[in-house]
Amino acid sequence: MTRTATASLASAASAAEDVTRVAVSTVIFSLRRDPGSDCSTVVLPLVRRTRDPHEGLWALPGGWLDIAESLDAAASRTLGETTGLAPSYLEQLYAFGAVDRSPTRVVSIVYWALLRPDEVEGSKDLENVEWFDAASLPRLAFDHNEIVEYALWRLRNKVGYSRIAHGLLADEFTLAELREVYESILGRRLDPANFRRQVEGSGTLLPTDRFRTGSHRPARLYRYNRDVELADLGPLAGFVRKGSS
Amino acid sequence: MTRTATASLASAASAAEDVTRVAVSTVIFSLRRDPGSDCSTVVLPLVRRTRDPHEGLWALPGGWLDIAESLDAAASRTLGETTGLAPSYLEQLYAFGAVDRSPTRVVSIVYWALLRPDEVEGSKDLENVEWFDAASLPRLAFDHNEIVEYALWRLRNKVGYSRIAHGLLADEFTLAELREVYESILGRRLDPANFRRQVEGSGTLLPTDRFRTGSHRPARLYRYNRDVELADLGPLAGFVRKGSS
Repeated sequence: MTRTATASLASAASAAEDVTRVAVSTVIFSLRRDPGSDCSTVVLPLVRRTRDPHEGLWALPGGWLDIAESLDAAASRTLGETTGLAPSYLEQLYAFGAVDRSPTRVVSIVYWALLRPDEVEGSKDLENVEWFDAASLPRLAFDHNEIVEYALWRLRNKVGYSRIAHGLLADEFTLAELREVYESILGRRLDPANFRRQVEGSGTLLPTDRFRTGSHRPARLYRYNRDVELADLGPLAGFVRKGSS
Repeated sequence: MTRTATASLASAASAAEDVTRVAVSTVIFSLRRDPGSDCSTVVLPLVRRTRDPHEGLWALPGGWLDIAESLDAAASRTLGETTGLAPSYLEQLYAFGAVDRSPTRVVSIVYWALLRPDEVEGSKDLENVEWFDAASLPRLAFDHNEIVEYALWRLRNKVGYSRIAHGLLADEFTLAELREVYESILGRRLDPANFRRQVEGSGTLLPTDRFRTGSHRPARLYRYNRDVELADLGPLAGFVRKGSS
């Protein structure tokens, strides 16, 4: 090999190490009913790393962005490959790009989604996937503890002004069920009468003619006003709503 | 050169083209008072491209992420290099990563900031930099029209529930001045009495002992409650607030 060729190879190798790579990760929040109580806990799925760096530690589901796929598609694909989960809607949360967050330079575009408890079944049997209580996580790989903390903060803020709790509920729900979602996310009890007044005054719920019956007295079922929800997605709706063209 | 070396070089060259590069861009919104009226227009600075792709078209200020700098630092640096502007605070807006948004594969992390009219002076004399009315832009380079549209949508949404208008005002301001900021962003007139009631009820403003005097009757000056504002930045405050350690 000539000296020039050797130099070129060395320069190419060094250039490859100088590259910033793009990854995607996903925070999936759901609720788990605590046995023997009417409280729920915010939970999220983590994947145990099977190679370095951070082999053996738990990490958010994710992977590398492929050259020929959009960020949204990469988030869906890597989530499915690692956990088997396929939420109908992933929202971009934040790009994390601290220089020292990984041994090589990696910018991670983080997505998030909320899943109803009945939607999380798909992930149950996979090796190296477990659901964790978001409030008491072990030390995670990379900066993933910080990412989850940020996602929880956004979740708590967002329930205050949007219909985000919708993603954790069935299509029809009682006001008590909706309040329980808010209580789980905010980590505190809410006054039932105040809660009912605020929610009914917001114009985001539509009452149905149906009632939940059971051990308590019948409670009216509500559903979200879908017109309001769709308007909220804004001009990126076509990009972030999976499956839209 | 051996066949192996040649193959390695070719493979290295092809790998370099297969790389996704990371760029940053910044949307800077400010207000420009329309001559002879009490209305203002939302304006933003654009930079004329001096090379391909899209040579001659206007684009958002920005540039490539350096391997050794954080996303926030890259946004500040490239904004300063292209426009001379140095806002005290840049917030990450969204990562744009459509496969066909550029001839090569580029993921752009977009930041945004609001500047008071007196803060935009620094950019005035630069060649290839001009301020445009956000509501009537020419065709911009890449997907930058779409990015500005998204930023405007977020701006309009955000004034509804946060103290974002603060960034467009001096430290002390009258309620009429605050209302004018809201009217410029929302693109419609607001009822003065309703506006006063809502803002005073929100707990985010503190009245001062000072008054604005002039051709109208004296109007009390207010300032934002800084405690509330800082709490709003959440766990990333240390990362997104420029200059913090």
